[in-house]
Amino acid sequence: MINGIKEKQFVTVEGGVCAAQGFKANGLNCGLNKDKGKNDLGLVVSDVMCNAAAVYTTNKVKGAPLLVTKEHLAACGGRTRGFIANSKNANTCNADGVEKAEMMCSLTAKALGVEPDEIVVASTGVIGQVLPIEPIAEHIEELAAGLSPENHGKAANAIMTTDTVMKEIAVEFRLGGKICKMGGMAKGSGMIHPNMATTLNFITTDATVSSGLLQKALSDVVKVTYNCLSVDGDTSTNDCVLLMANGLAGNEEVSAEGEDYQEFKSALYFVMMNMTKMLAKDGEGASKLIECTCVGAPDLDTAITVAKSVIRSPLVKCAFFGEDANWGRILCAIGYAEAEFDIDKVDVDMSSVNGTVAVCRNGAGIEFSEDEAAKILSADEILVDIDLHQGECSAKAWGCDLTYDYVKINGDYRT
Amino acid sequence: MINGIKEKQFVTVEGGVCAAQGFKANGLNCGLNKDKGKNDLGLVVSDVMCNAAAVYTTNKVKGAPLLVTKEHLAACGGRTRGFIANSKNANTCNADGVEKAEMMCSLTAKALGVEPDEIVVASTGVIGQVLPIEPIAEHIEELAAGLSPENHGKAANAIMTTDTVMKEIAVEFRLGGKICKMGGMAKGSGMIHPNMATTLNFITTDATVSSGLLQKALSDVVKVTYNCLSVDGDTSTNDCVLLMANGLAGNEEVSAEGEDYQEFKSALYFVMMNMTKMLAKDGEGASKLIECTCVGAPDLDTAITVAKSVIRSPLVKCAFFGEDANWGRILCAIGYAEAEFDIDKVDVDMSSVNGTVAVCRNGAGIEFSEDEAAKILSADEILVDIDLHQGECSAKAWGCDLTYDYVKINGDYRT
Repeated sequence: MINGIKEKQFVTVEGGVCAAQGFKANGLNCGLNKDKGKNDLGLVVSDVMCNAAAVYTTNKVKGAPLLVTKEHLAACGGRTRGFIANSKNANTCNADGVEKAEMMCSLTAKALGVEPDEIVVASTGVIGQVLPIEPIAEHIEELAAGLSPENHGKAANAIMTTDTVMKEIAVEFRLGGKICKMGGMAKGSGMIHPNMATTLNFITTDATVSSGLLQKALSDVVKVTYNCLSVDGDTSTNDCVLLMANGLAGNEEVSAEGEDYQEFKSALYFVMMNMTKMLAKDGEGASKLIECTCVGAPDLDTAITVAKSVIRSPLVKCAFFGEDANWGRILCAIGYAEAEFDIDKVDVDMSSVNGTVAVCRNGAGIEFSEDEAAKILSADEILVDIDLHQGECSAKAWGCDLTYDYVKINGDYRT
Repeated sequence: MINGIKEKQFVTVEGGVCAAQGFKANGLNCGLNKDKGKNDLGLVVSDVMCNAAAVYTTNKVKGAPLLVTKEHLAACGGRTRGFIANSKNANTCNADGVEKAEMMCSLTAKALGVEPDEIVVASTGVIGQVLPIEPIAEHIEELAAGLSPENHGKAANAIMTTDTVMKEIAVEFRLGGKICKMGGMAKGSGMIHPNMATTLNFITTDATVSSGLLQKALSDVVKVTYNCLSVDGDTSTNDCVLLMANGLAGNEEVSAEGEDYQEFKSALYFVMMNMTKMLAKDGEGASKLIECTCVGAPDLDTAITVAKSVIRSPLVKCAFFGEDANWGRILCAIGYAEAEFDIDKVDVDMSSVNGTVAVCRNGAGIEFSEDEAAKILSADEILVDIDLHQGECSAKAWGCDLTYDYVKINGDYRT
């Protein structure tokens, strides 16, 4: 159990955000991105209105699309038909940002024959450049006309920025005897750091869940998945997770915190945790996924804070890039985590598919084989296991190494 | 005025930590560092006992030398004769750390003919490797025998780790008609981040100042100098600033917060602010010094938090490395600073010896010449000026760009 969520394995299925019944998607290049082979405009729509839940960035600078999305969800009593999203331009810090975001919704609504309030919007890319609406206006009919359950990948491609791989997942689960599906897509590579809803993440399901429980489940799961992810410590202005449930699976509405709610939350955790790992693994310039688990903490927040502190440390990240078992930097990062605990009880292990090595006991170094450690750290996925030995709570955090390529990508992202 | 300190220019003089009367220093290679051309053991001693003040890291992992230093200062009523310091090994997270740190003091005391408690100790380097005491024991007599006011540079060289330049400064000032001097030396290049006393910093003066005011002045100045410095966001386990005042200038003791105390604090700010800039400029792999000034803040802490948030952002740092005027990332970092203010009033300028460019007004981008911006950002020292327009307080923070070399240095620091 983590934050009241039961960790379970689920059967994965094809279809991404269109795995659940009644969802269609499309994506294309409208010209915001000069690379014609890369989509920059995506649309995901449900056949019927969905209950929706959302979590937004905590940055004081909030992208105009987020403001419009919040307003539209409120205007429709927390319900939505779907979303339009673009990459290459964040439509943030521009005087006409809200106006442009509203136009994206109204253009989409017109093409679909629905009301503008029924559509929400997200943008990602460079901050502070005026978003040209013409390319979007010119391609919106084509985008809507091509909506199909098969085109989930085209939409997932459209939200990618410096991402090198598409991030999709879908699972099957049962509520009240009915088969339900849930799928997600995500983008994000840099400007990723806890205390937010991270980057752009869209999750669709055909389960029937009340709005209140949808939001509660999303908030609970975000806390131990996306908010436990750090690529570089920069909290984006446009982060958003949107969860849409259209109810087409036909299960009895989940409106109380019973067994069905637990199962739904477990499925949501599985989907979001896997997308979190995909985001970490594809962090800008990353060559390795780092998963840090903190157990034996007096409370959940301490476990999260310690695991995130290790994941965030540039020195730890560089050491993993160098495949150097520099555990002193890990203990240092644990030591400056803003939480209260006794550092002299802390144990640290490192492991991978190549084995496990114990490097620290009771806050002090122990002898270990450097050769064995080097072999373990040569793997693509490294686990750092911390036991505080002062409680029963645990948490995981995900990140990546810091490489030359991170610097290269971000030295000339805008130009 | 910043934190009650008057910013003033002072005349700089030669001599580093031996500029003040009655201080002698020496440094040599004892073999901890395999590079025989690089000193690894340094000693600075006053002819008479000094009033001392110190600030230590806030990391829960505290280097054994810091524990011993604290104890020795307490045992001598806040007074000390001098310090022994080594690089290459932090003597931290080792079971025998305190024992070894005590041995460093007692070996030094024996060579000088003083009591072990009268000596304090500092170490910097790799965490979690046992410190071999033999090389130190074998060279301590030679080190003590070579003590001289001329050898300040040998001691400053001994504390360097990945530093590429030696960091020394000294100034002259007057208290009650008497000429006083104050000098400092510092080391630090990586694992540098606010909420600490940063790295190793030693300041000596011949001014006569009461212990209480010495500590108060040091704490006030640290808050707006070293604690406003960030190279990589990692707070070291061994950070320490030590300020020693031996009283040989013969001024009447500064024991109340009058004019003399103000002058002393101004001199201390000048010394520490200049060392802070040297540390930022020589940050691991750095190619540029970044100085961020936040004015118009409702209070000092808000000004510090905002300026530090910008300095710390990996994305801002990479943009400066790429000489890219990506002001959206600066506004994003201001936006996630943990302080309360209205983001829609914020103005941002960038400048250097090559000119000034306004990039943001009232929280939104304004048009500017990319060519002019590129020229400004091609300089070695970049100023970022933020005006919150919601108060009278201001603060500065110092950092550097994030480069390929930072990753290279830290990918294989230990091995």
